[in-house]
Amino acid sequence: MSDLLDLAALDAADPLAAFRAEFALPEGVIYLDGNSLGPLPRAARARMGAVIEQEWGRDLIRSWEINGWMELPRRVGEKIGRLIGAAPGCTVACDSTSINLFKALAAALALRPERRVVLTQADNFPTDLYVTEGLCALLGRGIEVRRVPEEAIAAALGPEVAVLSLTHVNYRSGRMHDMARLTRAAHAAGALAVWDLSHSAGAVPLDLAACGADFAVGCGYKFLNGGPGAPSFISIAPAHLGAPMPLTGWMGHADPFAFGPGYRPADDAGRALVGTPFVLSLAALEVGVDLMLEADMAAVRAKSLLLAEAFIALVERDCAGIGLELLTPRTPELRGSQVAWRHPRAEAIMRALIARGVIGDFRPPDILRFGLTPLYLRFAEIGAAVKRLAEAAG
Amino acid sequence: MSDLLDLAALDAADPLAAFRAEFALPEGVIYLDGNSLGPLPRAARARMGAVIEQEWGRDLIRSWEINGWMELPRRVGEKIGRLIGAAPGCTVACDSTSINLFKALAAALALRPERRVVLTQADNFPTDLYVTEGLCALLGRGIEVRRVPEEAIAAALGPEVAVLSLTHVNYRSGRMHDMARLTRAAHAAGALAVWDLSHSAGAVPLDLAACGADFAVGCGYKFLNGGPGAPSFISIAPAHLGAPMPLTGWMGHADPFAFGPGYRPADDAGRALVGTPFVLSLAALEVGVDLMLEADMAAVRAKSLLLAEAFIALVERDCAGIGLELLTPRTPELRGSQVAWRHPRAEAIMRALIARGVIGDFRPPDILRFGLTPLYLRFAEIGAAVKRLAEAAG
Repeated sequence: MSDLLDLAALDAADPLAAFRAEFALPEGVIYLDGNSLGPLPRAARARMGAVIEQEWGRDLIRSWEINGWMELPRRVGEKIGRLIGAAPGCTVACDSTSINLFKALAAALALRPERRVVLTQADNFPTDLYVTEGLCALLGRGIEVRRVPEEAIAAALGPEVAVLSLTHVNYRSGRMHDMARLTRAAHAAGALAVWDLSHSAGAVPLDLAACGADFAVGCGYKFLNGGPGAPSFISIAPAHLGAPMPLTGWMGHADPFAFGPGYRPADDAGRALVGTPFVLSLAALEVGVDLMLEADMAAVRAKSLLLAEAFIALVERDCAGIGLELLTPRTPELRGSQVAWRHPRAEAIMRALIARGVIGDFRPPDILRFGLTPLYLRFAEIGAAVKRLAEAAG
Repeated sequence: MSDLLDLAALDAADPLAAFRAEFALPEGVIYLDGNSLGPLPRAARARMGAVIEQEWGRDLIRSWEINGWMELPRRVGEKIGRLIGAAPGCTVACDSTSINLFKALAAALALRPERRVVLTQADNFPTDLYVTEGLCALLGRGIEVRRVPEEAIAAALGPEVAVLSLTHVNYRSGRMHDMARLTRAAHAAGALAVWDLSHSAGAVPLDLAACGADFAVGCGYKFLNGGPGAPSFISIAPAHLGAPMPLTGWMGHADPFAFGPGYRPADDAGRALVGTPFVLSLAALEVGVDLMLEADMAAVRAKSLLLAEAFIALVERDCAGIGLELLTPRTPELRGSQVAWRHPRAEAIMRALIARGVIGDFRPPDILRFGLTPLYLRFAEIGAAVKRLAEAAG
């Protein structure tokens, strides 16, 4: 075990240290919010310049063919699929996470037409709850969204549950579910499992195929560094590639340019596509994903855990008596790649901390949240951040 | 009436001629495909550079506040609203046209729960048909999609029709519906009218409010020059701003950052928003919309009609005997801003024409389609295009 307080030694031994140079991080800022918006990969500048100048400006409409725009959602999706352990042909990049969750839930419910409950966690990411409620209201078949506390999930998996819908890593606490175990439990109860990987993809090793996850969605602009409002992804287990999708637009058609009057869905995850791909946003996302694919996810995970442990140890040393209450589990296996503390004055403290050049975020009502992003964070920055946190809270 | 064959005189008298310099058109290309993908506005280069370098790279997560990212869907939507004659607060820019059509149709059907038919045109844009069929299948309430030929639409507006769903300008023929008349007819039958303005926004003068249109959606990357896969827009009549939306994500919440457990929709068109806005794509769209707002739409329409008339007259003079059959109506009021001809060898002719530097497009089975975009087209280019068309078909 490394000495968690010897930050210089941790930085010197960091096998991922070289990745930092790949990001255009602003001077004087310690960025602990990569779980909310990843920073700009340097390569995105040239790539976006080429997409704008050559592909859009010069090649115009021909780019759909000659510059591979048509393949962009599948190409980027396939790369994300490798990051999350999905089988080939099962992942596409498109739309927003909320909309992809809508698709996944609707498809899963269609596969369990005789069941009437979507089981989820009471403190799931709010937009996931909104989307689920909206879908169930739209379907009007009396489907109930049952929200239970984390510890009650497994026991609530009864014969009426069609779908278990969970976010893998909790957006506030950073607590991570055991995806394999809960997916098995869902299957044992005859239900399907839909996972939101927004705070997992690019943050922790994932193996969707091994877990048997039925559907997964996730975010492109957090740990994947895909740019502000980057498109999301959706992954469909091979067994469900025949499931009907609720949003049936021309890009999901088996032959989009036939412009035929009847809809025939693609036989791969392309059936989850709907409208014309957001080329500019997808091009930026691809740069972030390519960079992430260069890193060894085991090394990313190891550094993420060390960053968290150093952060926690330093807060305990330097911020004792301030009243910060650790919200993130201490057990590494229960943690994603973020740490959070509760404090009654969390909002004011975060404001003061940001004024001191350390960017984390505040989540109501009382949470200070920090993203740990091994590709570009240095241990020394954690040390400096904790010192400024002590000042900001003082 | 101008002499349609004196192209130099038409160019000399063109009040919009100066706009051409605002676009980065490639050398040696006559671009008659702006109805499919608008070209790059020069201002988009600097704007995208700033969004990438300063807003994403330097300001990072703070851009949601300090650079107005949070307001982007409403700000761009409001500008599009001015172009299409929507009331303030009624239009947002987000998602794809297919997804926005899904929202509009679902909301309209919810407002007519006792009716069971969506009436549409047999040769409506295919993705609109796909989305409509998909929505009706999802709802599972026995709602029928009734497709009728254009001439049968008004007579088919019976008491069982919940929604009349039409594309204003036909994507192939360029034929334009009388939006005011058909909307009145829909209302007289107790139905709502949903309009797809993909080939109208930025192409023809529009006045949604005067027409009483209930919902409208449209495309950002065609006549609005918003970039490849630019986000779409959705506009909701003031009377329907309370209608429930089927896709309920956090951006449509009245208070997105409260992260509360219950969904409460915004009381403006923001309720049609779902997930995090595609900032990069929206920023490019705004540049295109800003440019379009600088032009007088009456002048745009006048030039568009002249371009079409010159095009048709020149084809009749220079391509006589080739066997091109005009598909677009000759009557100006029945035309959008594109012209199309049928020919048995349309695909081969279009390929040969593109090889000669004139970009239009082929639409199966036998259509040669040309977009007429007054902001950057010169009459002289129409003359040159027709000469090359004669060669290509020869």
